[in-house]
Amino acid sequence: MSSDPSELIDSITGGDRRAVARAISIVEDQLPGKEALLKPLYAKGSQTFVCGITGPPGAGKSTLVDRLARYSREKNEEVGIICVDPTSPFTGGALLGDRIRMADIATDPGVFIRSMATRGSRGGLARAAREVALILGATGHDAILLETVGVGQIELDIAETADTVVVVLVPESGDGIQAMKAGLMEIGDIFVINKADRPGADGLVVELMSVLAINNARQWTPPVLKTIAKSGDGTRELMDSIQKHRSWLQTSGEGDRRRKQRVGAYVKEIIQETMARRLWQEKNLKGQMNRLLDDIMEGRTDPFSVAEEIINAGEARVSSGRDEV
Amino acid sequence: MSSDPSELIDSITGGDRRAVARAISIVEDQLPGKEALLKPLYAKGSQTFVCGITGPPGAGKSTLVDRLARYSREKNEEVGIICVDPTSPFTGGALLGDRIRMADIATDPGVFIRSMATRGSRGGLARAAREVALILGATGHDAILLETVGVGQIELDIAETADTVVVVLVPESGDGIQAMKAGLMEIGDIFVINKADRPGADGLVVELMSVLAINNARQWTPPVLKTIAKSGDGTRELMDSIQKHRSWLQTSGEGDRRRKQRVGAYVKEIIQETMARRLWQEKNLKGQMNRLLDDIMEGRTDPFSVAEEIINAGEARVSSGRDEV
Repeated sequence: MSSDPSELIDSITGGDRRAVARAISIVEDQLPGKEALLKPLYAKGSQTFVCGITGPPGAGKSTLVDRLARYSREKNEEVGIICVDPTSPFTGGALLGDRIRMADIATDPGVFIRSMATRGSRGGLARAAREVALILGATGHDAILLETVGVGQIELDIAETADTVVVVLVPESGDGIQAMKAGLMEIGDIFVINKADRPGADGLVVELMSVLAINNARQWTPPVLKTIAKSGDGTRELMDSIQKHRSWLQTSGEGDRRRKQRVGAYVKEIIQETMARRLWQEKNLKGQMNRLLDDIMEGRTDPFSVAEEIINAGEARVSSGRDEV
Repeated sequence: MSSDPSELIDSITGGDRRAVARAISIVEDQLPGKEALLKPLYAKGSQTFVCGITGPPGAGKSTLVDRLARYSREKNEEVGIICVDPTSPFTGGALLGDRIRMADIATDPGVFIRSMATRGSRGGLARAAREVALILGATGHDAILLETVGVGQIELDIAETADTVVVVLVPESGDGIQAMKAGLMEIGDIFVINKADRPGADGLVVELMSVLAINNARQWTPPVLKTIAKSGDGTRELMDSIQKHRSWLQTSGEGDRRRKQRVGAYVKEIIQETMARRLWQEKNLKGQMNRLLDDIMEGRTDPFSVAEEIINAGEARVSSGRDEV
C-alpha cells in the first residue's frame, strides 16, 4: 500500500477496508501524517451520526450493539462499531465473550468493527475514538455505534463525543442515585434497563424516571426503556427511540448546538497540541530544558518559573523573526 | 482564613490542617492562585518520599496502607495518605468500607488522609494527585502513601508519579500474564500477593517471579512478597522492602533519574497549559473563534485549518508587540 496520503484517502473514501484499518492505526498510534489524513476526511466524516452506548460492565452493551447493528443492516445501512475498553484486562474475560457473540455480524462486509485499547493512547482515548468515528464516517458508514465499557471518567468523555447517548443499566447495577453520582444521568439521552426480566427492573425504571423528572430544564425528556438484549425483547423500541432522538436533534437545533460545542473543544485541543509541538521543535530547547531541569533538581528554581522562561524564550524567537532561528 | 497566598503558605508550612485542606481544594478545583501557591512550596514539597500502592479493586490496598501508616507512626513519622478513586460509584460500597476500616488512624493528628474523586478533575487527576502530594510534603509529612483504586490507565499514570510503586494482587486477581497486559509488571518496584492464605498464592508468586526474571535489564529486581493485611502477616517485611527500595533509589542515582523525568513532564504540562490559557485570553479571540466554528459547521473549512489560523494570528500579535494588542 502506498504511503502517499492522497492515495490512502482515495482508498478510504472508496471503502477499502485495509486502507481504513491503516488509517485507524495512524490515528490510534498518533503517527506523523495524521493531520494530513483527517483534514480532507473531516467535511464528510463529521456528518455521520454517532450513537454512544455506555454503562457498567456486564450490562449487556455488546449484545444490544449487536441487535442495533442488525436492524441497520435490515435497512441495508452500513454500520461502524467502535468498542473502547479502557478498563483493566483483569475484567477482560467478559469482553472477549462479548466479541465472540458478535462473531456473525463481524463477518458481514456491511459492518466494520474496531476495538480500541487503552495502552498506547494515554490521555487521548476520547479524542482517538472520535477520530476513528470520523474515518468510519468518511468511508460511507451510515451510522457509528460507539460502545464504551465501564463507567469511569474516560467513558463519560467518550460518550460526550456521541450525538445520542444510550445509558445501559441492569436491575443489579444499583439505584438511580448511584447512576447520578457516576454522572450518567446528565449524559444519557435514552436510558435502558437491560436484562429486564430480572427482579428490580420496574423499581429501577420508576426511580430513574423520577430522577430524570427533576431536571425540568431539558427540552428532551429521556425515555427509560426495558430490554432483554439476548432475546431481543424491547430492542426494536430502543432502535425507534434512537431514531426519534436523532430526528429531534435535527429539528430542534440541539444537534447543531452540541456539534458546535464539540468542534470548539476539538479545535482547542489541536491548537494546544500544535503550539506545544512547535515549541519542542525549536532549536536549542532540549539543551536549555536539560540545564533548567538540573536547576530545579538542585533547588535553584521551580517548574513554574522554568515554564515561564521557556515560553518567553519561544515568544522572543517568534518576535525576532523565524528566519533567524 | 485570609485569601492572601503568602499567609496561606505560612499556615501550610506551619502544619495548619485547615490551611492544608484549603490548599488541596485550590489544587483539585484548579482555582486561580494555584500557581502562586505551589511555586513557593515546590522546593520543600518535592523532596518528600511518595509510595504508590496500586492494584485491582478488592485487593486489600487500604488495609495495607493502614498498616504501613501505623509503622511510620511507631517511628513518630507524620504520614500523608492520598486515596484516588477514579472508578465508578457502582463499586463505591467497598471503598466506603475501606475508609471506615481506616477510621482510627484517621483521627491521629500525625496522619492526614485525603480522598480524591474523579468528577471535576477530568483529565488532570494524576497531576492533581502529584500536586496534593507536593502540598502534604511541604507541610512536613515524612512520607506520602498514594493509594489508587483500580488498574486502568489513570491508575498507571498516578502510580508513575510515585518514587516507589507497590503493586498489590490477590490470588484470585488472575495470572502474571494479565498483570503484564495491565502494564503493572513494568511499573511495580515491589509486588505483594495479599490475602496470601487463599488458594493459589504460591503459584502466583512463582509465576510473577518468572515474569519479572525475563526483564534482565533492571538494576533492581522487584521482590514478590506475601501478606495478609488483615492479620498483619508479612506487612513488616513489606515496610522493610519499601525502605530498601527507597535507599536503593538514593544510592543508585535512579531516584534522581526518575525525578528528573517527572519534573520534565511536569514542566511540559505547565508550558502547554500556560500557552493555551494566554491564547484564550487574547482579545477578539472568542468572536473570531465563533465565526470560524460556523465556517467548520457549514463545511467551508476544517478544525485543523482553523487551529492553524488562530495560532498564526496569535503569533502575529506577539511579533507586532503586545502593546498594540
